[in-house]
Amino acid sequence: MTLIVQKYGGTSVGTVERIREVARKVSEAAKDNRVVIVLSAMAGETDRLIGLAKQLSDRVNSREYSVLVSTGEQVSVALLCIALHERGLRARSMTAYQLGIQTDEQHKNARIVQFDKQQLVQCIEQGEIPIVAGFQGVNTQGDVATLGRGGSDTTAVAVATALNADECQIYTDVDGVYTADPRVVPSARRLSHISMEEMLELSSLGAKVLQPRAVEFAGKYQVPLRVLSSFKPGPGTLITFEGNKMEQPIVAGVAYNRNEAKFTIRGVPDTPGVAHDILGPISAAKIDIDMIIQNVGADGSTDFTFTVHRDEVVRGQELLRAIGDKLGAREISINDKIAKISLVGVGMRSHAGVASTMFKALGEEGINIQLISTSEIKISVVVDEKYLELGVRTLHSAFELDSDPSEEFDPAEHSY
Amino acid sequence: MTLIVQKYGGTSVGTVERIREVARKVSEAAKDNRVVIVLSAMAGETDRLIGLAKQLSDRVNSREYSVLVSTGEQVSVALLCIALHERGLRARSMTAYQLGIQTDEQHKNARIVQFDKQQLVQCIEQGEIPIVAGFQGVNTQGDVATLGRGGSDTTAVAVATALNADECQIYTDVDGVYTADPRVVPSARRLSHISMEEMLELSSLGAKVLQPRAVEFAGKYQVPLRVLSSFKPGPGTLITFEGNKMEQPIVAGVAYNRNEAKFTIRGVPDTPGVAHDILGPISAAKIDIDMIIQNVGADGSTDFTFTVHRDEVVRGQELLRAIGDKLGAREISINDKIAKISLVGVGMRSHAGVASTMFKALGEEGINIQLISTSEIKISVVVDEKYLELGVRTLHSAFELDSDPSEEFDPAEHSY
Repeated sequence: MTLIVQKYGGTSVGTVERIREVARKVSEAAKDNRVVIVLSAMAGETDRLIGLAKQLSDRVNSREYSVLVSTGEQVSVALLCIALHERGLRARSMTAYQLGIQTDEQHKNARIVQFDKQQLVQCIEQGEIPIVAGFQGVNTQGDVATLGRGGSDTTAVAVATALNADECQIYTDVDGVYTADPRVVPSARRLSHISMEEMLELSSLGAKVLQPRAVEFAGKYQVPLRVLSSFKPGPGTLITFEGNKMEQPIVAGVAYNRNEAKFTIRGVPDTPGVAHDILGPISAAKIDIDMIIQNVGADGSTDFTFTVHRDEVVRGQELLRAIGDKLGAREISINDKIAKISLVGVGMRSHAGVASTMFKALGEEGINIQLISTSEIKISVVVDEKYLELGVRTLHSAFELDSDPSEEFDPAEHSY
Repeated sequence: MTLIVQKYGGTSVGTVERIREVARKVSEAAKDNRVVIVLSAMAGETDRLIGLAKQLSDRVNSREYSVLVSTGEQVSVALLCIALHERGLRARSMTAYQLGIQTDEQHKNARIVQFDKQQLVQCIEQGEIPIVAGFQGVNTQGDVATLGRGGSDTTAVAVATALNADECQIYTDVDGVYTADPRVVPSARRLSHISMEEMLELSSLGAKVLQPRAVEFAGKYQVPLRVLSSFKPGPGTLITFEGNKMEQPIVAGVAYNRNEAKFTIRGVPDTPGVAHDILGPISAAKIDIDMIIQNVGADGSTDFTFTVHRDEVVRGQELLRAIGDKLGAREISINDKIAKISLVGVGMRSHAGVASTMFKALGEEGINIQLISTSEIKISVVVDEKYLELGVRTLHSAFELDSDPSEEFDPAEHSY
């Protein structure tokens, strides 16, 4: 009998009616499978609790933050159990304390370090469905710790890994991973599968379907992960791993991100160590840097460009002014009206010409490229923010990702 | 340095503003004392959670009920810690899991059986104020259990007992124990002290200031208990114990209860075992019986009267009909338009004449007594419901409990 871990997100358990609907789906799955359920807090609950804390203090202690917000998941698991009992199923809620989900010492962004599956195995063997509170763990001090936003995905993957589950299903409010954001590209297609590496690139690039850490975790332990909608039937998107023999398309999808700002420092001496002179103080101030591009100039000087989150513009600017003065830079410029568009696909590894097709397509639409950054399975360009939608749609068509209306969905293909 | 346990009820922590005010009171107390705080859930939160559960099921599983509602206290303790940190105090929230508050197997109405004070002692020694989640424990299965409504009082007394505290202060929305309900008797006085036995009689008789179990517990371990208001300054009421040398008044107060109904079964054979024939099936149906009165008739038959909670009238009636048929009873009658009025006072033990004064006073007002029941420190009468307020006020005056406007409150007397 197959073992399936299902995780339901906040909107999926956002109301009593939706919890009842989740109970229906769980009882459906429990007919032919052994199942373990992981839940998030009811949508809005975490924010409500954080709101209460913020009314009391601007700098909420991390330990008490975790004690506070972890109650949200405890509420959902109890309610789902009650709904399952009402359907005549046997179910048992489990908190991190009961499961012994050990984390490291990061209170608000903890990582799971150990997890004894014994409690879960026992519960399943007794014919009960374990309903696990996501997002929480217990640190070595015996304090409750939380795994950071979206941490319930990580809990689900950890549970699936420990139990060697056949599949870990992440139920959310989208019905899978798309070739592009359907709000920008109406012809975007749902992918029936995507490689783990592509998924990682897409999730860190702004397709907020899964927590990147959960994808990494699943990849490391080779847990088959599937993203599905709680509200719309369908097979969702399966995240596959190396060794999977399915033919990969060249480009899996087009992602975008409009939360970045670009800093440029021009005319600094092109000497060893200059990159560290510039980026060291930025990192030391805990400002995350995304893209880094260095152009060598003709006169022994160099130009240096990097991008940071838009929220960091003010702090970054001050730091960069000081750095520029110190290095005798010719000019410093800041642009926060930019957007990053990325092509992602493992097929790029073996297919030359992806970049040139990309640049040609953008050029034909008159979209000027400000920055380029590449990795083995990704090409990102930074363009003027106003071209974002046009750029995404242009690339979606150029790589033939648009859906073919003649291709009907075949449910027989997905028969679990 | 004295050690004080303070417990704040739901209305005292009902809003962010009130939590801030509790933080102020705690920091005040922490100046000259070591303090441990026990909290209830924010007012309304427990009912909100129960409401969610009831939307899902009519028969909520007790285990999941406890998992669900115990989150309420976890939220309050985290929020109070955050508020105390904001005032620059060191405080640490503690759940039943962390404290190891062991209970028996009753999920929704558990009793504390064991409690290792080590965690608390350590926390205090490290200069932190422990903020304890009331109302919760952990049973031998490792499941969270709840102590029943008002259970946070019991948690506070258990904590005070374990730590051998100098005083356990119960902060609530009334400023002490009164000689009668001030809504019925405007001249009712706050008692500066009351004996534990009187308090027990009063709390089980409907003066809902303290959970009776908490009073029993405090009595057993001789923990000085004080009831105070969170909203109004004042010394409240101290609950004293045997061995206390203070002079006791004859009557401490007048209590009432309008939640009972009276069953009478007439003309049953006056034989040994008849009481059990009548009350056995009622108890077996888990209907709690309060007063029991048996009158012997002249013809070898007897009349039997008892009172139950009004909610049990329908079930009780059916049972009693069957019993009456079996015993060949002459008549069965039910009256749910009754009220019980009680005089409570340890002084009654040594003072004859309390009963006759009571009956005379009621008689002079034309109030007919339907039932009388007495214990060593209590006399209860059942009267027609319409006489409740008049009866309470009459007795309050007859025993000279009315406040003397010339007696001003002297704060110097209460200087802690």
